[in-house]
Amino acid sequence: MKINVEQAAAFLRQMDNVVILCHKSPDGDTLGSGYGLLYGLRALGKRARLMCADPAPRYLCCIPQEDTKEAFTPDFVVAVDVADPALLGSLEPEYGKKVDLCIDHHPSNLNYAQYTLLEDTSAATCEIIFEVLQALKVELTPKIADCLYTGLATDTGCFKFSNTTARTHLMAAAFMEAGCRFYEINKAAFETVTQARLAVQQQALASLTYHFEGQCALMEISRDMMEQTGATEDDLEGLSALPRQIEGVEVGVVLRQNKERTGYKISMRTNQRVDASAVCSLLGGGGHKRAAGCTVEGEFSQVRAKILEALQLWL
Amino acid sequence: MKINVEQAAAFLRQMDNVVILCHKSPDGDTLGSGYGLLYGLRALGKRARLMCADPAPRYLCCIPQEDTKEAFTPDFVVAVDVADPALLGSLEPEYGKKVDLCIDHHPSNLNYAQYTLLEDTSAATCEIIFEVLQALKVELTPKIADCLYTGLATDTGCFKFSNTTARTHLMAAAFMEAGCRFYEINKAAFETVTQARLAVQQQALASLTYHFEGQCALMEISRDMMEQTGATEDDLEGLSALPRQIEGVEVGVVLRQNKERTGYKISMRTNQRVDASAVCSLLGGGGHKRAAGCTVEGEFSQVRAKILEALQLWL
Repeated sequence: MKINVEQAAAFLRQMDNVVILCHKSPDGDTLGSGYGLLYGLRALGKRARLMCADPAPRYLCCIPQEDTKEAFTPDFVVAVDVADPALLGSLEPEYGKKVDLCIDHHPSNLNYAQYTLLEDTSAATCEIIFEVLQALKVELTPKIADCLYTGLATDTGCFKFSNTTARTHLMAAAFMEAGCRFYEINKAAFETVTQARLAVQQQALASLTYHFEGQCALMEISRDMMEQTGATEDDLEGLSALPRQIEGVEVGVVLRQNKERTGYKISMRTNQRVDASAVCSLLGGGGHKRAAGCTVEGEFSQVRAKILEALQLWL
Repeated sequence: MKINVEQAAAFLRQMDNVVILCHKSPDGDTLGSGYGLLYGLRALGKRARLMCADPAPRYLCCIPQEDTKEAFTPDFVVAVDVADPALLGSLEPEYGKKVDLCIDHHPSNLNYAQYTLLEDTSAATCEIIFEVLQALKVELTPKIADCLYTGLATDTGCFKFSNTTARTHLMAAAFMEAGCRFYEINKAAFETVTQARLAVQQQALASLTYHFEGQCALMEISRDMMEQTGATEDDLEGLSALPRQIEGVEVGVVLRQNKERTGYKISMRTNQRVDASAVCSLLGGGGHKRAAGCTVEGEFSQVRAKILEALQLWL
């Protein structure tokens, strides 16, 4: 059942023992939402505990993750930023069917909880959590501001993505007023790279080739590159966006070799004219107009030839 | 003479023919301020013209730069974001001593204009221009919002730098409400690289070496790299910040060979512990705690050895 901010706040006001669930492979929005809500509920004298199937990545070090091991029997289970119970990971068997309230901003939310507070125009679930905390008259402390600012910043690429709204900035202003450590948060989230990331990016960029008079830039991330640099999947984050960022490039393509080395996962990003989804559907894939993908078996040169052939209709 | 926002607005209200001056090698803040003020004054029925010694860089394509060649005799000259008349470049001989009003946020402003509106707590001069336009009761159109948002975003690294304040976000919210093209502005300013930039970065990163157990990362930008890639000085923007962004690195050093190939310009950035200014002063340079520089004559290996020797006291 869909509910609004006031109704969600009314439920939380009544509950004294709350378990908060974040999604697996946690990002800044699920952890920022979870800890922001946790500290808010504690400020109201309630017991609260946060659970997540996976540890927090290092770039989210500015979210204060205080020990929440206190044992209690929950009377209310809240999932934050979790669109699908499968995203609870190892927590799904125990909690998948016991979520009382889900607070989320994903349009794809499966409506699996007893009550769902969904605002899909919010850039981040943290925006909704802030509304709930305001309805609960929780004071905005620096600690809560750190949590909620982190969610806003990471889900909007630091206010750059098209999901950003005037309200996002108004809330950021409130978090800044409350003393959030925005400089440290953004430095950790956006301006820190691992040695392995830099090394694998370096090797991938060395493979970069331009086609169609510079309108297409294409690069490979092979298993050899991953092994030589010790890069993990985490280290590849954002690399798919790189070729499209080159001036004059309409179509950016990244070919990532599969573990079995039998083929490639293709990620295609376009700027304005080319429908990436249409191109990738020619190769058995799909996606959105500006970002799509497909899987093609074969060696690098064969796979590249197939992609360039498919692109020939557009470039 | 220092004046406040109301006083600056009062002057502008009286004037009908205004020339606006931007600084040479223009950035987003000087052009955003200049065009924002220009469109504001025109909306009030005044004649206004913008002048700048150099053309706008391509990454500022979202600032509407409408033809302003209309001939008139100015009764008022305003410089925006220009801390020193020398920064007027080729416009200095004609206008350097004729600036009636300077609107700026640099603490280093030389107070060279007849009247100076200086707010050095503003992240960008565009913040001050917005206050002036509000005092003049100019309606915030999408065009003006594009100009002023560009200055805010570019001078704060998209709200990441420590100069960002709650007010910066409140103003950004107003520009978003007014319909500024924030997505396109940020894409052009922050997510577009030239082929030459990518190529020179690639070569520079190939020269990257780690020292003091990964606490220092050092890279070279040689004249050969510049020539081979066709990179210009513009293409090097932001490269100096790269080594310090690597996880675990306390000191990031970039060695840029001089044109005569007789030595290197060193740029040093530090994170927390090392005083870059103290290190560089050992080598005859100086600067700030977190960013400093010096010039060292010699070949690459010699220069690198000198820097590492100087760093030995700290790492």
